[in-house]
Amino acid sequence: MPRVPVPPEIDAFLAEPNPAVVATVSPSGAPHTAATWYDWEDGRVFLNMDESRLRLRYMRENPAVALTVLAAEDWYRQITLLGRVVSIEDDPDLEGIDRLAIRYGDEPFHTRTARRVNAWMQPERWSGWPLPR
Amino acid sequence: MPRVPVPPEIDAFLAEPNPAVVATVSPSGAPHTAATWYDWEDGRVFLNMDESRLRLRYMRENPAVALTVLAAEDWYRQITLLGRVVSIEDDPDLEGIDRLAIRYGDEPFHTRTARRVNAWMQPERWSGWPLPR
Repeated sequence: MPRVPVPPEIDAFLAEPNPAVVATVSPSGAPHTAATWYDWEDGRVFLNMDESRLRLRYMRENPAVALTVLAAEDWYRQITLLGRVVSIEDDPDLEGIDRLAIRYGDEPFHTRTARRVNAWMQPERWSGWPLPR
Repeated sequence: MPRVPVPPEIDAFLAEPNPAVVATVSPSGAPHTAATWYDWEDGRVFLNMDESRLRLRYMRENPAVALTVLAAEDWYRQITLLGRVVSIEDDPDLEGIDRLAIRYGDEPFHTRTARRVNAWMQPERWSGWPLPR
C-alpha cells in the first residue's frame, strides 16, 4: 500500500461527506468496526465519538486505526486509510460533533447533553480503487 | 453488545446484498479494513478474497474479524458483527466468488483466471441501529 500523501483526486473524494467505517483493535487483539461520520482536513481524519463508545476505549489503548470510506452513490468507489490516532480530546462545547453533523446533515447535533470526544487520525498508508470509475 | 443469534429483522437485513467493510488485525496489532462483498447463510458470513489480499494473510494468523454492513440506500441503517473466521478454503472453481458476484451484480465473476479463497465467519456479538428506521 502506498504511503501518504494521497493523490489530489483521492483528497477530493475524502473531502466529500461519504459513509465510512472505522476500525480499532481491542486489548485481546480482536478488531472492532463501526459506521462513522468523519471529516478530512490537511491530510488528517477528524472523528468524534460518544464517550461511552468501545472504539474510544480501544483507541486510547492502541492508537492504530483503519478507515474505509465508501462513495455514497457508488460504493465500489472506496478508499482505505491506515494510520494512528494522534490526538484525543474532550468536546465539551460539542463543536466537534456539530462540525460533523452539519457536514453530513446540515444541522447541529441534536443531543445537546451528549458527552463527546474528538480524535484526529494521521493516515500513513492508503489503498483503493481508481476514482472516478 | 448482545450475543448472536440476531433478531429476525437483522437477519433479513443481512440477507440483502448491502455494502460492507471487513476488518482484520495485522501481526503488529494494527487494524486493516476493506470494502467487501459478503453473503449471509444460517447465521454465518461468507467472504471470498483474492489470494493476494492482506486481510487473508491476517485472518490466517488471527481469526478475529469484524464486519460492518451498511444499508445501500441509507447508510444510517447499519449492523456490526464481531466474530471469528472458522473456515478458510481455496475456491479453485470460482464457485464462491461467483456466488457473491451474482448476488451483487447478477453475473459470474469476470476474471476466470483469478485465484480466490473462501472464508466463513461465525459472528459472536452484534450491534446496530434499529431497523427499519
